[in-house]
Amino acid sequence: MSLLGTITSPEDVQRLTPGQARELAAEIRAFLVDSVSRTGGHLGPNLGVVELTIAMHRVFSSPTDTFVFDTGHQSYVHKLLTGRQDFSALRKQGGLSGYPSRAESEHDVVENSHASTALSWGDGIAKANVVRGLTDRHVVAVIGDGALTGGMAWEALNNIAESQDRRLVIVVNDNGRSYSPTIGGLAHHLSTLRTTHGYESFLQWGKRTLNRSGAPGRFAYEWLHGLKKGLKDVVAPQGMFEDLGIKYVGPVDGHDVEAMEHALRRAKAYGAPVIVHAITEKGRGYTPAEQDVADRFHAVGKIHPETGLPVAPSRFGWTGVFADEIVQIGRRRTDVVAITAAMLEPVGLKPFAQAFPERTFDVGIAEQHAATSAAGMAFAGLHPVVAVYATFLNRAFDQVLMDVALHKAGVTFVLDRAGITGDDGASHNGMWDMAMLRVVPGLRLAAPRDEATLRTALREAVDVDDAPTVVRYPKGALSDPLPAVDTVDGVDLLAVPGDAPAAAQDAAPRARVLLVGPGSMARVALGAAESLTAHGVDVTVASPTWVLPMPSALVKLAGEHDLVVSVEDGVADGGVGALLAQRSLEAGVRTPVHALGLPAQFLDHATRDQVAATYRLTAADVARDVLDALATLAHD
Amino acid sequence: MSLLGTITSPEDVQRLTPGQARELAAEIRAFLVDSVSRTGGHLGPNLGVVELTIAMHRVFSSPTDTFVFDTGHQSYVHKLLTGRQDFSALRKQGGLSGYPSRAESEHDVVENSHASTALSWGDGIAKANVVRGLTDRHVVAVIGDGALTGGMAWEALNNIAESQDRRLVIVVNDNGRSYSPTIGGLAHHLSTLRTTHGYESFLQWGKRTLNRSGAPGRFAYEWLHGLKKGLKDVVAPQGMFEDLGIKYVGPVDGHDVEAMEHALRRAKAYGAPVIVHAITEKGRGYTPAEQDVADRFHAVGKIHPETGLPVAPSRFGWTGVFADEIVQIGRRRTDVVAITAAMLEPVGLKPFAQAFPERTFDVGIAEQHAATSAAGMAFAGLHPVVAVYATFLNRAFDQVLMDVALHKAGVTFVLDRAGITGDDGASHNGMWDMAMLRVVPGLRLAAPRDEATLRTALREAVDVDDAPTVVRYPKGALSDPLPAVDTVDGVDLLAVPGDAPAAAQDAAPRARVLLVGPGSMARVALGAAESLTAHGVDVTVASPTWVLPMPSALVKLAGEHDLVVSVEDGVADGGVGALLAQRSLEAGVRTPVHALGLPAQFLDHATRDQVAATYRLTAADVARDVLDALATLAHD
Repeated sequence: MSLLGTITSPEDVQRLTPGQARELAAEIRAFLVDSVSRTGGHLGPNLGVVELTIAMHRVFSSPTDTFVFDTGHQSYVHKLLTGRQDFSALRKQGGLSGYPSRAESEHDVVENSHASTALSWGDGIAKANVVRGLTDRHVVAVIGDGALTGGMAWEALNNIAESQDRRLVIVVNDNGRSYSPTIGGLAHHLSTLRTTHGYESFLQWGKRTLNRSGAPGRFAYEWLHGLKKGLKDVVAPQGMFEDLGIKYVGPVDGHDVEAMEHALRRAKAYGAPVIVHAITEKGRGYTPAEQDVADRFHAVGKIHPETGLPVAPSRFGWTGVFADEIVQIGRRRTDVVAITAAMLEPVGLKPFAQAFPERTFDVGIAEQHAATSAAGMAFAGLHPVVAVYATFLNRAFDQVLMDVALHKAGVTFVLDRAGITGDDGASHNGMWDMAMLRVVPGLRLAAPRDEATLRTALREAVDVDDAPTVVRYPKGALSDPLPAVDTVDGVDLLAVPGDAPAAAQDAAPRARVLLVGPGSMARVALGAAESLTAHGVDVTVASPTWVLPMPSALVKLAGEHDLVVSVEDGVADGGVGALLAQRSLEAGVRTPVHALGLPAQFLDHATRDQVAATYRLTAADVARDVLDALATLAHD
Repeated sequence: MSLLGTITSPEDVQRLTPGQARELAAEIRAFLVDSVSRTGGHLGPNLGVVELTIAMHRVFSSPTDTFVFDTGHQSYVHKLLTGRQDFSALRKQGGLSGYPSRAESEHDVVENSHASTALSWGDGIAKANVVRGLTDRHVVAVIGDGALTGGMAWEALNNIAESQDRRLVIVVNDNGRSYSPTIGGLAHHLSTLRTTHGYESFLQWGKRTLNRSGAPGRFAYEWLHGLKKGLKDVVAPQGMFEDLGIKYVGPVDGHDVEAMEHALRRAKAYGAPVIVHAITEKGRGYTPAEQDVADRFHAVGKIHPETGLPVAPSRFGWTGVFADEIVQIGRRRTDVVAITAAMLEPVGLKPFAQAFPERTFDVGIAEQHAATSAAGMAFAGLHPVVAVYATFLNRAFDQVLMDVALHKAGVTFVLDRAGITGDDGASHNGMWDMAMLRVVPGLRLAAPRDEATLRTALREAVDVDDAPTVVRYPKGALSDPLPAVDTVDGVDLLAVPGDAPAAAQDAAPRARVLLVGPGSMARVALGAAESLTAHGVDVTVASPTWVLPMPSALVKLAGEHDLVVSVEDGVADGGVGALLAQRSLEAGVRTPVHALGLPAQFLDHATRDQVAATYRLTAADVARDVLDALATLAHD
């Protein structure tokens, strides 16, 4: 019988001998490789934290002690040790979430998969424990070196450093790359530290701290303690954290369970915030992942467990088109530069970076800086293209508004994975962008529906030099071409009533319905139109590429129909359909405008199609809604 | 004739002798004290940067070299040196802006007064200069020690540290307090540095850098150079910045023009990013401001130039009521804690902090951390109240959504200065909150209209333990009590048609209009109702305290009227009026809903009343719009 099979709770982990703990680590590693290869999911990050997580559960007692995992995609080992070993439906509807989930377990606290939040959560929980007098409770926050480049981490560290009474252990999981090799000054610093720690720096540090004014007793104790333990687990000089006043332990070999346990026990005993610096390898023990410098294994689709090659390669068609078009634009326009927030390859900027390395900037996990530095670049004569996942632009709302828009900066934001993303769970859905961005003065937003409109939208976006432009497209396969049959003042019509088979025998006037389906909803609108036409409804399908500002042509079209139904893969409240309704009312158009889309709710993980079906965004749903609305109108 | 009067451009500043430069500083200081005392404005911050700004203009050449001022409220001296000396209408309509303004001068680049952006702007501009081969251009970014606690500054520093070719000079204007004494680990570090620099640390630093691998030549040069110059302007060890790899010069006496010039010239010659650490005194040379520990002089209304006492004290009534009520709540509820982002006094948390110091947390200029650490505190059993200016919550949109709302955390956000703020200019208006927050799942938002509803809303807000709540109120004087004459399912009615004088002789059916005026718009709606009643219109005035989620009672009321007009002091597109329109349509209510409010535009500085008049938000405007809409309806 396997050891892993006997682990039903953290208490079982605590009972293991050191040898058994090592054995458990090996079993978990084998389990992850085998299981995640089959289901898909984040393999590399979880292989990197096997020993670290086991050590945490041996030293601390979750859930009395609180574990917080930054971004959460490295919580699979934690799940295995807290009673969740059925990974067969990982990230599928009804199965385990790919992130911590409060619904799954009392051991899960933070579900948010946006980066750099763990230290703020940890600070808050530790502060609350102090206020409530629960001084025996510890908080352990695990954060990667990449996430430390995010501004929130700095804000939190600066607060944590103030405290001498909060029982907060920060585990820096340092694998030298987050999504891709970590960028920036901090990375250089950590890298130097990884390679230069040794007697010399240690002794220098000792001398300095012993001579230092303030709390000399504690530092002297730590120094002597460190000497006694030898350099395997030394208290090293870690300039930056030390300057802030946070105690630092490490670097520790994150794949040595005993060393990690030792470091965590010392941190636990300290009674004040401590940073434990663990050096790990992403993908440890799995050859393809270890060797993959391009980080395709960060989150994998189903892969072959031995070669690491995709079994059924996902088609990232939208990203691929962007990747190609932006290089072509870059060839023509030497002023176009590209900015990514630690996602060079996932957002499709690798080819641009290879073609124009001096015009490509990876700013780290720092969307705020991405937006504002882009405003600066635009001021100084360039046209920056900031490519991010749609959900992560939420981090930079204030900067898009106050730095880019207020300063009339020509900056193009390209939002990949806009709309429903599905299996990544609630915090990855790119469903907030249109409702959030529509209040930004002067902002223009395009939701292209296929390859041709995406390419055109990108070219038009980079031509705007006095306002932010946004081009957003979904996760998943690219649609087949959806050509326009007509165009009204720049708004493409994909179907017009004339296309419908004549129904001469029908004497009653046919209802005229305008369906508005921007972006990936164009196909849904077309499907609904087909069904409605069969029901004797005259349907016009409009698919505006540029939806913000609201095209006046749509308002005009609305006035020429009996009913307008818009459908969007974003929040319906305050979305583009709602805006069309508002503009129509203002223009004196009395046609009812029904805005379909996602509710303002957090969506559970499932496939994109399942989510669409749940929220009634399929062609059949839209057709049914139109017929219901027509029936109501007829009764009025 | 005064020296200041001869300065029409930076070239004139460069021509001065060192003695004249000192004389100019004295004249400017006298001018500021005299002028800002009369007009109101940011006195203290500008008195702190007189010499620093003069030195900048003597060493660099704006606008070829780019000056960026973080938050911008310390740009008065810069204005005086770049041809803008008429301060008589400072912050008034048609007068000089209180912040940099591109419309005023080519010497002004960044207008955004949200903190911590300057380094990102500087990084972007410096990167663009490199890409464009403009290697003779420098960027000088001035940032306060307080703004360095913001996450954006960290993101930028981390990027700046990567570069060895960007000509970027970062002037850290370190006065040891930003709005109030600067909080956190960084502050302690800077403070230590201020007091301990000297031979010992200098020599230690020299030894370390000489032995360091990588670029030894440059460091050796700098070290020797520093030795030669003596310790007045030494290259000191500045652990954190040095660890990041950014060159550091200082500390320098920021009130010594020559010392500042010397430091800036060295930084300019370096050819790579350099931090110049200037020690300044906020309010330097003006006794009341220097002595005011509570920082009432950060931004002053009109004050007496000798005593520093307010001439016509502003009535911050809303803030005062909050300050009082939150203390009362804190007495009853030991789980209620307060969080401020470096604005303890301006947001009215001082009395709470005095009563409950252990339950008050100033996180620095770090709204993101404020929101997410609040989520952590809520998880751990407390109810945090985060009090910020409305415009600054934009910084934490992602955290409100993903950390607070997704995790069903009971956190109360209190938004002071919501709506039109007026003279602070475009980036201070708190007009985005409702449109931004309405997409946040589960969020409840109150817009109280007077003291009684504010107190009730606060008490109700802190009772919610599974969702974010928001209470927002405007800048300016508190309204007189506006009691309800009736209540429909929790929605207060301030006037009902029965109140109107009977007009029995009028045979035609009177039009029934519902005016919806939340918060400070209640008074406007009441004023419009009075005028409309005189025109023979039956008016109901509803003033819902809780506007999000949209009260179903309002939808029901809408159905009982011929016309609904809502008026809000926020962006009308996507605001609460637009939401009422959408909900009414969904409920099958066919009454037209007109949503009045601010356009999605940036508003120029003027008084609040002037802004309201410009955007047609006065009672007379609303009444006229209602009559116009009724006329249109009658024609249909």
